[in-house]
Amino acid sequence: MSEDKLTPRAENYSEWYNQLVQRAELADYAPVRGCMVVRPYGWALWENIQQALDGRFKATGHVNASFPLFIPMSFLEKEKEHVEGFSPELAVVTIGGGQTLEEPLVVRPTSETIIGHMYSKWIKSYRDLPVLINQWANVVRWEMRTRLFLRTLEFFWQEGHTAHATAQEAEEETRRILDLYTDFAVNEAAVPVVPGLKSKTEKFAGALHSYSIEAMMGDTKALQSGTSHNLGQNFAKAFEIQYLDQNNQLQHCWTTSWGVSTRFVGAIIMTHGDDQGLILPPRLAPIQIVIVPIFRSDEEFSLVMPVVEQVKAALAGFRVKVDDRSEVTPGFKYHDWEMRGVPLRLEIGPKDVQNGTVMAARRDIPGKAGKTLIQQDQIAAQVSELLKTIQASLLQRATEFRDSNIHEPKDYADLQNIVQNGWAYAWWCEDAACEAKVKEDTKATTRCIPLDQEGGSGRCIVCGQPAARKVYFARAY
Amino acid sequence: MSEDKLTPRAENYSEWYNQLVQRAELADYAPVRGCMVVRPYGWALWENIQQALDGRFKATGHVNASFPLFIPMSFLEKEKEHVEGFSPELAVVTIGGGQTLEEPLVVRPTSETIIGHMYSKWIKSYRDLPVLINQWANVVRWEMRTRLFLRTLEFFWQEGHTAHATAQEAEEETRRILDLYTDFAVNEAAVPVVPGLKSKTEKFAGALHSYSIEAMMGDTKALQSGTSHNLGQNFAKAFEIQYLDQNNQLQHCWTTSWGVSTRFVGAIIMTHGDDQGLILPPRLAPIQIVIVPIFRSDEEFSLVMPVVEQVKAALAGFRVKVDDRSEVTPGFKYHDWEMRGVPLRLEIGPKDVQNGTVMAARRDIPGKAGKTLIQQDQIAAQVSELLKTIQASLLQRATEFRDSNIHEPKDYADLQNIVQNGWAYAWWCEDAACEAKVKEDTKATTRCIPLDQEGGSGRCIVCGQPAARKVYFARAY
Ligand SMILES: [Zn+2]
Ligand SMILES: [Zn+2]
Repeated sequence: MSEDKLTPRAENYSEWYNQLVQRAELADYAPVRGCMVVRPYGWALWENIQQALDGRFKATGHVNASFPLFIPMSFLEKEKEHVEGFSPELAVVTIGGGQTLEEPLVVRPTSETIIGHMYSKWIKSYRDLPVLINQWANVVRWEMRTRLFLRTLEFFWQEGHTAHATAQEAEEETRRILDLYTDFAVNEAAVPVVPGLKSKTEKFAGALHSYSIEAMMGDTKALQSGTSHNLGQNFAKAFEIQYLDQNNQLQHCWTTSWGVSTRFVGAIIMTHGDDQGLILPPRLAPIQIVIVPIFRSDEEFSLVMPVVEQVKAALAGFRVKVDDRSEVTPGFKYHDWEMRGVPLRLEIGPKDVQNGTVMAARRDIPGKAGKTLIQQDQIAAQVSELLKTIQASLLQRATEFRDSNIHEPKDYADLQNIVQNGWAYAWWCEDAACEAKVKEDTKATTRCIPLDQEGGSGRCIVCGQPAARKVYFARAY
Repeated sequence: MSEDKLTPRAENYSEWYNQLVQRAELADYAPVRGCMVVRPYGWALWENIQQALDGRFKATGHVNASFPLFIPMSFLEKEKEHVEGFSPELAVVTIGGGQTLEEPLVVRPTSETIIGHMYSKWIKSYRDLPVLINQWANVVRWEMRTRLFLRTLEFFWQEGHTAHATAQEAEEETRRILDLYTDFAVNEAAVPVVPGLKSKTEKFAGALHSYSIEAMMGDTKALQSGTSHNLGQNFAKAFEIQYLDQNNQLQHCWTTSWGVSTRFVGAIIMTHGDDQGLILPPRLAPIQIVIVPIFRSDEEFSLVMPVVEQVKAALAGFRVKVDDRSEVTPGFKYHDWEMRGVPLRLEIGPKDVQNGTVMAARRDIPGKAGKTLIQQDQIAAQVSELLKTIQASLLQRATEFRDSNIHEPKDYADLQNIVQNGWAYAWWCEDAACEAKVKEDTKATTRCIPLDQEGGSGRCIVCGQPAARKVYFARAY
C-alpha cells in the first residue's frame, strides 16, 4: 500500500513512472536482472487487454495455438537480416539434463522461424490457405537497459503469424491488423495512437515493411505500442513455405507477423496517469468501481453496510470492489484507490442511507468538480453513464494533449527545437541519411509515416530534396 | 486430414494414441527433441480447460499473476529435497546477450523457489494473509522419454502458490484444491478421477505431503492428472517467508502449491477415445456440433443451405461448425469429425428440408443406435438435451470401465497378476520397501491412498504387517 506521494511528473517523469508501477502494485522487480514479476493487479489489467484483443482476433477468423519456447540456433540463421537483428539479444540454453547440448537452443525472441518451419510442414495446397494463427506467449530479449513493462528481458505478448496465397492478401492482412490494433487502442484503452509505416531503418528485422501504432506519453515521448509486419516471401523462401496453386504450380507463400505486448501497460500508465497515480480507462480497469463505506462507529457500520451490499448487488454487471477495511481511514482508502487508478469511487455514509443517495467521485477529475450525488434507485444506469463519460473524457484529454504537442517545423532548427518537447511532423525524403542526422543531432527517430496524409509534396526538412510524404520525428521509449 | 484408419487400441495402444494426436490435429512434434507444437484444435481444447479451471480458481478467491521464466541456480539449492528432485531435469541458460553469465539461469521446472522469494518481500503481516496466487505458464523439464501431451520438455500448466498463517489453513487449501480438481475432472471432462494422498516416495520434491487425482486410461494404466501439495514450512523457512502475527511475533508462513497441465489433454484422449478417434466431452469440446449439409447437385445445395443456416442460427448458444466443403464427400466429413471427436453431428439433406427434420448422430454411439431424428423447430432444446446425455454417458461409461478394472488382490501373487491389466486396491503398511518391491516385480507404483475409505484395518499385501489404509497400485504414465 501507498502512503507517500509520488514524485511529481514535472519533477522527474521517469521516477514518477517507476514509483507508480510499484506502489500501484502492477509489477515488481524479479531477482534476475531485467526480469519482472507482474503482480495480480497488473496481470488482471493485462488479462483485460488480452480479452479485448483476443475477441477481435477471433472475430476476424484467427485461431490460437502454441509453439515451442526453444528454437535451434540454426533456424535463426536462415534469414540473414533476422539473425543480424536478433543475435545480440539472445538468451541461449547450452545445458539440458546435465549434458552440454550438441546444438544450443535459443529462447525465442520472436517466433517467425519456428512457426515458418511448422508452416512448411502443414501447408500443401491453396486450400490450406490462408493460415491465420496467433499465440499468447512469453519471449526473451537480452536488453541492457530495462524498465518495468517498457523493456524487460522477458515480456508477454501475442504474436500473430499468417500465411497467404498472394502478396495482396498478405498486405491486406497486415493492414487489417493495424486497423484492429488502432481500434483496440483508441476504443478500449483510450490511447489515441497514430497508425503508420515504419522507415526502413526502424522496420522489423526480416520484414518487407512494418507498420506500427505510435502513442504519445505524458512527457511527449513516443511509445511504439503495436506492430504489424508484411514479411513478403522472405521467411517463406528461408523456410520453404510452399503451396500448390489451382494450376498445380508450386508457389511460395506470403507471410505476415504482428504483436502487442505488456509494453502496452506502460502506454496506458503514461497516457493517463497523473501525480496521484494511475488512471485506468473503465473498459480495461480490473476494478471499475470501488465502494468505500463511511462510518465512525460500529453502529454506523451496521447502518451503512446493508446499503453498501444493496448497491453492490445493483452493480452486478460491473467490476466492483467493496473496501470494508476497518483498520484504515476513508481518506487512506481514497488515496489507495486513486494510486491504483480505479475510475469511479462511490462513498456511502449514514447520511446517504437516510437520503437514498450515493456520492460518486471520478478519478479523472480530482476534488469537488469530479463529484456527483446519485440516487440509489438509479445507481446502475447512472454509473454506466459515468463510466462511459470517463472513458470518452480520457480519450479526449489524451487526444488534445497529443495534438497540442505535435508541431510542423519551419526549418531544421525548428525541428531540433520541437523534438525536445513534442513530435515534429515534417516532409522527409525517406533517405536513411537524413533520419540518421536527426537522430545524431536530437536523439529523435522517425516514428511512422502516417497512412492518413493530406497528400501533395514538399521538401525534406533535413536535406531539402523532394519529399512525397510526411513523417513524425520524436524521441521514443 | 485423415483418411486412413487408426491402428486399433487393442493392437497397439501407444501407436493408436500417437496417430490420434496427430490426425486429429491436436499437436505435432517440434523440431527440438521432446517439445511439442499445440495446434489450433488442441489449443482450443486447452483454452476450454483453462476457462473451466480459472473460473473455479477465481470463485474460490484466487488471483492470477506472472512470475519470471528464469530462476537463479542458487535459488533451487535453498531447499535440499527440491533441488535433488529437479536438478537432473534442468535446462540451463549460460549465455545472455553474447556473454557468459556469471550465475547460470535455470528455465523454471516449477516456481516454488522464485515465488517463495517474492512472497518473502511482499508478506509482512497477518493482514497480508492468505496470499492466493495462480499463474498460467510454460515450464521445462528435461525428460528423456517424451510423448505428446503426456510428457514433453516444455509443457503448459497452471501453478497455484498460496501462503497461510496456520498449518490448518494450508491443509484446508490443499484439500480445497484437490476437491476443485476432482469437480473439474468429473463434471467438465467426464473423467472419473480418484482423489487421494501420494506416498512419501511419490510426493513432490520438497512437500510435506502431496495429493493427486488419478485417472484410469483406456489401457487401464493410471495417469496422474493433477496434484496439490502441502509444503508445510519447508519453503517458508528456505526463503524466509515470515509474517508478524496479531501478537507482533514473527512467524513462518505455511505454503501450498498445486497444478494441472496439458497432460490433462492426454487424460481426455485416453479416457474417452475409441478406434475411430477422439471423443470429446461436450462441455470442453471446441466444436460441440458439426453440421454436414447433404447434397448431390448445385440445386440440392441451394435447397439445403438456407436450412443449414437457419439451424446454425437456432444453435447460436452452442459451439457450431458448418462443414460446407464441396471437394469432399459427406462420408469423408463424417470420418474427419469423428477423428476430431465432435460430440454431435447434424445431417441436413433435401428430405430433411421437406420434412422439417434434422438427423442427429452421437459420436459416442456409432451407427444407427446413435442416431435420432429431430424436428427443426425443436432443435435447440433437443440438441441441448442430447449434449447433456452424451456428457453423462461418457462419464458413466468411463466410471464403469474404471470400476470393472479395479480389483482387490487376495495375495501378493494376485496383485502381480491384477496390475498387468488393471488397478489393485490393497492394504499397505506404507513402508517404502514394500512399494519398491511391487515396482521392481511389476512396474506398478502406488498411485494414491484414496481419502474416501471404508475404514478398518488389515495386513499389508506385500509384507503382511498391520496396515491402516488401502492404496491403489497400478502401472502409470
Ligand atoms: Zn532528406
Ligand atoms: Zn508392507
